[in-house]
Amino acid sequence: MRIKILGSAAGGGFPQWNCNCGNCAGLRNGSIHAHARTQTQIAFTVDSKIWFLIGASPDLRTQILATPELTPNGNSATASPIGGIFLPSADTDSLMGLLHLREFQSFFVFATASLQKIVKKENRIFSVLDRADPPVQWQTLSARGRLGCHLSESPGEAPAFICATFPLGDTYPDYVSAELVRTMAPEEATIGFSFEHAGKSLLVAPSLCGRNSEWTKLAASSDVTLIDGTFWSDDELRRTGRSNKTARDIGHLPLSGTAGLLEQFPRNARGRHILIHINNTNPILDEDSPEHSAVLDAGFEIAYDGMDIEL
Amino acid sequence: MRIKILGSAAGGGFPQWNCNCGNCAGLRNGSIHAHARTQTQIAFTVDSKIWFLIGASPDLRTQILATPELTPNGNSATASPIGGIFLPSADTDSLMGLLHLREFQSFFVFATASLQKIVKKENRIFSVLDRADPPVQWQTLSARGRLGCHLSESPGEAPAFICATFPLGDTYPDYVSAELVRTMAPEEATIGFSFEHAGKSLLVAPSLCGRNSEWTKLAASSDVTLIDGTFWSDDELRRTGRSNKTARDIGHLPLSGTAGLLEQFPRNARGRHILIHINNTNPILDEDSPEHSAVLDAGFEIAYDGMDIEL
Repeated sequence: MRIKILGSAAGGGFPQWNCNCGNCAGLRNGSIHAHARTQTQIAFTVDSKIWFLIGASPDLRTQILATPELTPNGNSATASPIGGIFLPSADTDSLMGLLHLREFQSFFVFATASLQKIVKKENRIFSVLDRADPPVQWQTLSARGRLGCHLSESPGEAPAFICATFPLGDTYPDYVSAELVRTMAPEEATIGFSFEHAGKSLLVAPSLCGRNSEWTKLAASSDVTLIDGTFWSDDELRRTGRSNKTARDIGHLPLSGTAGLLEQFPRNARGRHILIHINNTNPILDEDSPEHSAVLDAGFEIAYDGMDIEL
Repeated sequence: MRIKILGSAAGGGFPQWNCNCGNCAGLRNGSIHAHARTQTQIAFTVDSKIWFLIGASPDLRTQILATPELTPNGNSATASPIGGIFLPSADTDSLMGLLHLREFQSFFVFATASLQKIVKKENRIFSVLDRADPPVQWQTLSARGRLGCHLSESPGEAPAFICATFPLGDTYPDYVSAELVRTMAPEEATIGFSFEHAGKSLLVAPSLCGRNSEWTKLAASSDVTLIDGTFWSDDELRRTGRSNKTARDIGHLPLSGTAGLLEQFPRNARGRHILIHINNTNPILDEDSPEHSAVLDAGFEIAYDGMDIEL
């Protein structure tokens, strides 16, 4: 399996368009040692030909153009190597990018039944994906399941990889109507993924709400874990003047503090563990900061745009 | 008035993520003389402090970061110089970018009542803009009107500029429900703008459906006209294998041919006239092509990303 990190920041990216916090201003004026990041977007392939996306970031058009492996090939005018997209949630920063893919291309979208309801019942703009011939194909994921994924239609062939899903968060985005939320299972709000191929596994959990710990067992045994590095501290948005909400209020376990990610992450994890979905306010973005050193010392890597992982 | 072209391509940009047409492949492999373009986005200011956007392109985050004038300033963490957005239509490529602006920022959105219905009744995801405190303020435009725009709240002050609107197209995007379309005036589907300040005027008409000619009178008298350069020929999408629809089918008068834009554009137009919203398939993008020379010879300029216009 080959994994490419096309984007590694949280919603809004780094810098954010309207943000003058220490990190954003410091990156712009060169006073801190940091690197710009687009919004979290992961891609992987198991055959070096067909690529799958995890999430659909608001920066997806730019991210595809920056990735030679995703350049259209062959003679057809619509010959993208992107075969499918796995959607973790209906959050704007993992859903909006579907609209970038509206140009006459058919592909598979894997999502829970609840996410599909949000798109189809309350957000008609996404039906621009039906313009492709054949239209985009939606495939239903359960919040807890194992799906064998095939790259060809040959009968009897073993799946090329397995997509295992598990519940990660129980809260739907605030733009979804209360009536619709009442009809949906909370466990389908945000799901994590474990992709398995040739005896190796990739765990993807970029948002940990802190109210379940199922991810810890998977994190201990995965070969690569891409995990929630959104906030350093619970009150980070308040201290940087961005919002009155805490990290936990908006569905992210902070890295530091009591029962934070650094404390909860399994000591015996055998694979690489890489922080992703890093918010513009997070002090780990400043590569000279003590927080940056602290996560490296704790055995984590920090994802960056263009990061290439062989598994 | 100062005008900046942040993006000059049609929907999907140039190159398009999944397109291998002669232009897109030629740009990628360097075999044609052409420049990449992001999706159409215009910005202007009349006081060099507060900027207004025309349309909200899918590439808006990247476009803002590439434009020093739009960098947040002052001490507040949410201090963008962007004060408002004028929306011409509910087309994905002029609406989607609103979602890039969801980060706790209040601003004004100017749009017809019909466009607001599409957003508020059938696309709840846009309510992420209500997270700002105060929330984003919607202002209603009529399809044919004159609105005085103020930059401060001082009573009795003359408007800083006038926004005059006129109908440009009568077809709503195909993602809007038939039930909703029945309740909306066709003339509110796509509007053009004339912005007037200090005796000068900017005309913005990036989509001409070809079924009205009201724009010709305005184009003759404006100081700067930004006008529909989407397609060279009516059957361009068919010939490049992108779609079976004609340019006119999807609301764009082609540049060439009988009753095309080059033929209809007023001979006596006194101001600069600049083609914008250029589709990836348009041969004028190849700077060595006879079509590129033809539009220059006809007195048009071709918009490019970063183009700066003083008026």
